[in-house]
Amino acid sequence: MATPNVEYTTSFTHTLRTMVKKLWTKLVKFTKFIKEIGQDDPRRFIHSFKVGLAVVLIYILHHFRPSFYGFGDNIIWAVLTVVIVLELSVGATLGKGFNRMLATWLGGALGVASNKIAILCGDKGRVVMTSIFVFVIAERVTFMRFSPKLKARYDYGMIIFILTFCLVSLSDVSGNELLEMAYERLLTIIIGSSIAITVCIFICPVWIGKDLHNKIAGNIEKVADFLEGFGDEYFNDTENSEDENNKEFLHKYKRALSSKNSEETMAVLARWEPRHGRFRFRHPWKEYLKIGNLTRFCAYKVEALSVYLHNSKTPYEYRSRIQEPCTDISMESGKALKEASLMIKKMSKSSSPKVHVLNAKNAAESLKSVLRTNPWEGADHLEIIPASTVASLLIDIVVCVEQICEAVEELASLANFVPSESLHRGVVQPISDSDGSVHVVSVA
Amino acid sequence: MATPNVEYTTSFTHTLRTMVKKLWTKLVKFTKFIKEIGQDDPRRFIHSFKVGLAVVLIYILHHFRPSFYGFGDNIIWAVLTVVIVLELSVGATLGKGFNRMLATWLGGALGVASNKIAILCGDKGRVVMTSIFVFVIAERVTFMRFSPKLKARYDYGMIIFILTFCLVSLSDVSGNELLEMAYERLLTIIIGSSIAITVCIFICPVWIGKDLHNKIAGNIEKVADFLEGFGDEYFNDTENSEDENNKEFLHKYKRALSSKNSEETMAVLARWEPRHGRFRFRHPWKEYLKIGNLTRFCAYKVEALSVYLHNSKTPYEYRSRIQEPCTDISMESGKALKEASLMIKKMSKSSSPKVHVLNAKNAAESLKSVLRTNPWEGADHLEIIPASTVASLLIDIVVCVEQICEAVEELASLANFVPSESLHRGVVQPISDSDGSVHVVSVA
Repeated sequence: MATPNVEYTTSFTHTLRTMVKKLWTKLVKFTKFIKEIGQDDPRRFIHSFKVGLAVVLIYILHHFRPSFYGFGDNIIWAVLTVVIVLELSVGATLGKGFNRMLATWLGGALGVASNKIAILCGDKGRVVMTSIFVFVIAERVTFMRFSPKLKARYDYGMIIFILTFCLVSLSDVSGNELLEMAYERLLTIIIGSSIAITVCIFICPVWIGKDLHNKIAGNIEKVADFLEGFGDEYFNDTENSEDENNKEFLHKYKRALSSKNSEETMAVLARWEPRHGRFRFRHPWKEYLKIGNLTRFCAYKVEALSVYLHNSKTPYEYRSRIQEPCTDISMESGKALKEASLMIKKMSKSSSPKVHVLNAKNAAESLKSVLRTNPWEGADHLEIIPASTVASLLIDIVVCVEQICEAVEELASLANFVPSESLHRGVVQPISDSDGSVHVVSVA
Repeated sequence: MATPNVEYTTSFTHTLRTMVKKLWTKLVKFTKFIKEIGQDDPRRFIHSFKVGLAVVLIYILHHFRPSFYGFGDNIIWAVLTVVIVLELSVGATLGKGFNRMLATWLGGALGVASNKIAILCGDKGRVVMTSIFVFVIAERVTFMRFSPKLKARYDYGMIIFILTFCLVSLSDVSGNELLEMAYERLLTIIIGSSIAITVCIFICPVWIGKDLHNKIAGNIEKVADFLEGFGDEYFNDTENSEDENNKEFLHKYKRALSSKNSEETMAVLARWEPRHGRFRFRHPWKEYLKIGNLTRFCAYKVEALSVYLHNSKTPYEYRSRIQEPCTDISMESGKALKEASLMIKKMSKSSSPKVHVLNAKNAAESLKSVLRTNPWEGADHLEIIPASTVASLLIDIVVCVEQICEAVEELASLANFVPSESLHRGVVQPISDSDGSVHVVSVA
């Protein structure tokens, strides 16, 4: 009997081992997955901690002062409020909190009124009247939610309004009892929202306005990275020798292509935020959307340009004839955007974007005059078309870059950026005159 | 005494009149605003009606069978569920409903378990244990919500899970009473969700899958509109004589530029929907996203092209030398996209997109051979650059159009589109051979 028993034990330990091993790999995988989420944005760890903390806070408060809430069951409303209202950013939390408090107050008051009116109509009349009230309010407010303007700021409030109105007007109790109940619920929701807002603002706050600010600056920088690198990349005579891994800067701009929706959402939420850091309460958030849109238009052009990096290149012999002005345009445009992005990041006025835009415009003029000399005389038109398209797109991009820099300038004056020592020294390099002399104007 | 009295009455009626007038203008304005929201999408009226109906349905059910829900106060949970779960589209409603039911069940079960464990630890131990449980669950699940994959499908469920878990484990009652309470709440939520889902599916349902389907087809059509009109518009010798109002087709493609986010949301929601119309349960929704992305890339190119419609036009003398092949390319690309869009709309296989792609490719070859003959010999390079850029972009667009048509083809085979009589007759027009003879191949 010993042998089968041993065999059984062995196979059992074997099964157990594989199971433990499997579980371990799964656990390792899961931990890795969690780590990745956190590494993308470490503030997520802090936010999760804050939610846990806020819920426990309410529990402790309830445990030591159960009389505080009037009656025990109401703790659920406070917990409900905290879990739903507490969002990652201060703007979203404040928006939801105010929406919830205001909507509960309005819905509750209207609900009590409709309840009183319905009672006046007798027993059967009450059912009819309540049905009508509830139907009309639910129908109308649901319809209002489709308005894009109202939806952006008050969508959550409108749901809560319907909800509260229905709860109060459908309630079985009435008279003073109803009033008391409504009052207590409003109180718990105010307490819940206040706890959520307090925790959100005072423990490592995440300001969505700042996020928007950084995002816009980041998008400009991504487009700038491409432009700065484009010249060397396109006029490179050798065939793609390096691997593509080192050329991440050529793809980063793609993120700017589809960020319109998130920028708009952020701008709406940012308007709820109070003064923080160097952002005033009425910071010109709309200006950021304008800059974002202009950056996106520039990114569309960059997208069109990027096609010519890879296929159907004009032979180097012809390409090289416009190399200098084209490299100058893309380099100076890139620098102008980098400086504009830096200006936003540091929130300081600076004249260096203008200087680089001027350089880029000069380089564009220089490119035009090169083109006027018919540099490709006698070449196959089909072969030079890619190069001439690159030239044309680059000339267009200078216009876009100028618009972006002007918008940033406008933001700087609207948001009272502080004038600062020039962040970098800029040098204007005009096209050499016909007599060959070169004027170099240094701007301090 | 009579005169001042009359005066008083007159001024009073006057004030009343202005007030009524003001109110009337406001009412007219508001009605207009409401009408506009409705006209954008008349299904919004129906949806609002459905929400009102569902809430009244619950009230009536509660009024005639108060015993049905066990205890009266629970009606609030049913109303809460209906108002929050009932969304415009079936996909969103089903997703929220299932999320809510599953999350309530899971959270409730876990909450009851944690409550029982906490009670075993004595009076003081209970507070500590409950705090730890609530904190860990709230913290971990909130963190999980940041995972983009989970967020897309289960975000609402995760909030409800935290909520229910907190409510049950923090509850003052325990033992059988707690079990009973949890069971009754789950039941009302199931009833509420079921009413919401039933009303949503059986009264004028709005299928988000169908919306996505139409949206993708619509975006392709918008790009096609531009391409069909581009040739005539660009090679028009006369200066902008017509007003811009008649040229809406030149701007419609812009909507396709920034629709990425909404397409992705729709695809996630569409996966919840059961078989409806000619859409199966596992309809290849991902394929739509692929087509959407390709259309967007084509729209970026169209955006680059549209710049050349307005400024820095090459003189007509030079432009006209590439007029024919360019007009053919844009017209045939536009037709190919129109047919592809029609193929999606009618859900029927068709070979006509292929035919038009072939025509467009032939036209591109023809353009290339025109360019090889150096049509602009002797012209100012700066002047011909815009025209050559247009030519280059059009050649690129043919590649994009071919990719879109291939993706639509793939969708047709994955989604089992029915083969149909060709929707339109297509004609292949190859480049005229050197001997001048033209072969016309008709495809039935």
